[in-house]
Amino acid sequence: MSRDVTTEVERLAERLRDFARARDWEQFHTPKNLAMALAGEVGELVAEFQWLTPDESRALDEAAFGRVRSELADVTAYLVRLADLLDVDLIEAANAKLLENERRYDSDLYRGSARKAPPLTS
Amino acid sequence: MSRDVTTEVERLAERLRDFARARDWEQFHTPKNLAMALAGEVGELVAEFQWLTPDESRALDEAAFGRVRSELADVTAYLVRLADLLDVDLIEAANAKLLENERRYDSDLYRGSARKAPPLTS
Amino acid sequence: MSRDVTTEVERLAERLRDFARARDWEQFHTPKNLAMALAGEVGELVAEFQWLTPDESRALDEAAFGRVRSELADVTAYLVRLADLLDVDLIEAANAKLLENERRYDSDLYRGSARKAPPLTS
Amino acid sequence: MSRDVTTEVERLAERLRDFARARDWEQFHTPKNLAMALAGEVGELVAEFQWLTPDESRALDEAAFGRVRSELADVTAYLVRLADLLDVDLIEAANAKLLENERRYDSDLYRGSARKAPPLTS
Repeated sequence: MSRDVTTEVERLAERLRDFARARDWEQFHTPKNLAMALAGEVGELVAEFQWLTPDESRALDEAAFGRVRSELADVTAYLVRLADLLDVDLIEAANAKLLENERRYDSDLYRGSARKAPPLTS
Repeated sequence: MSRDVTTEVERLAERLRDFARARDWEQFHTPKNLAMALAGEVGELVAEFQWLTPDESRALDEAAFGRVRSELADVTAYLVRLADLLDVDLIEAANAKLLENERRYDSDLYRGSARKAPPLTS
Repeated sequence: MSRDVTTEVERLAERLRDFARARDWEQFHTPKNLAMALAGEVGELVAEFQWLTPDESRALDEAAFGRVRSELADVTAYLVRLADLLDVDLIEAANAKLLENERRYDSDLYRGSARKAPPLTS
Repeated sequence: MSRDVTTEVERLAERLRDFARARDWEQFHTPKNLAMALAGEVGELVAEFQWLTPDESRALDEAAFGRVRSELADVTAYLVRLADLLDVDLIEAANAKLLENERRYDSDLYRGSARKAPPLTS
């Protein structure tokens, strides 16, 4: 991955940094607090889906889609802000994890089975 | 934001899509289920910080940092996969939300106060 | 609700209090930290159900049932401990909320519709 | 634990059961969905504490206390409803887990150390 250009994740991180600094909110942005904020936003995201069947969750109406998109924005913002504070490159970390899993979960062996190997990543 | 090049988030989304398809796991990857998986991973992330003071959470030891980085990777993977299924551009959505908040939370009015205006985004 | 006898929730709270005190762990048991611990355990609980269909979640196999029961125990312990620290009577609070909702969600008006009125309580 | 009298948890479970039945909402109350609802409510609870220091979280002002109590009520309701569906006795399960932990975490060995043995239960 060429790192000689600023990526869109880095630009968002920078903008969040400026936003916090301009309001003197950096004092609240400890990793502990940001992890909690992330959990709060993910809770709101999950709540959007709680009474839907899995099929219904694939076909959100416009109002629900708008709310979900808004929650995804919040989750992204806190995740990128948290990773920035910890100096973790999220995309690089996710790609590294995925590489491990591509090896660990052989595509023939684990085909179609959520019992044997459900995860995307862990 | 010029969209004529594939971004790193899009490349990760594509790779996750291929990973799921190769194992016939797309059947499990409904938005409802992925939101749950995301909540599970965020729970693991929060657990890493639960007994630390806010200050300690800024200075993780190497072992804790490794675990946190790994959880951040998992959260990122499920978030990107979920957004891909819903056809949401996470970075664009987060930037749009941030723009709203830059206007809503005047930097002088809300300076230093988490009571008045805690959020990064919501 | 007659309060002249110690309830089973109170007895559990007391036992958790003793457990923490005997290990000098009260210093870690702030409401903030316990809320995080609760979120971590609920994340583990949700993860147990993430790839199951709603129907499958009604008919857990023995191994899954054992894990779910164990997670429910953890969630209960942290919830009771947190409420004890804040001096909240969980059962009384839940009953009060439910009374509100019995009035708010008329049983004829809201019959069968999760769109109109999804919650149990909120 | 003598089980010849109905406990307050059982009475709450029964009342929640009636509440759901009267509105024909049992169809939405699968364990999967209720675990999600629980995660959503715990997310709201965590959000109440996210910008507070651990010390501040011990001394909530009246408004914050009211909101926290309300979230604790919601968490309790969904937890009791979920356990009722799965036929798990929450208090018994928590007591059994605690007994294990009383043995596992020797009170002298683990004194004062969240590194060695952070949990209440797990």
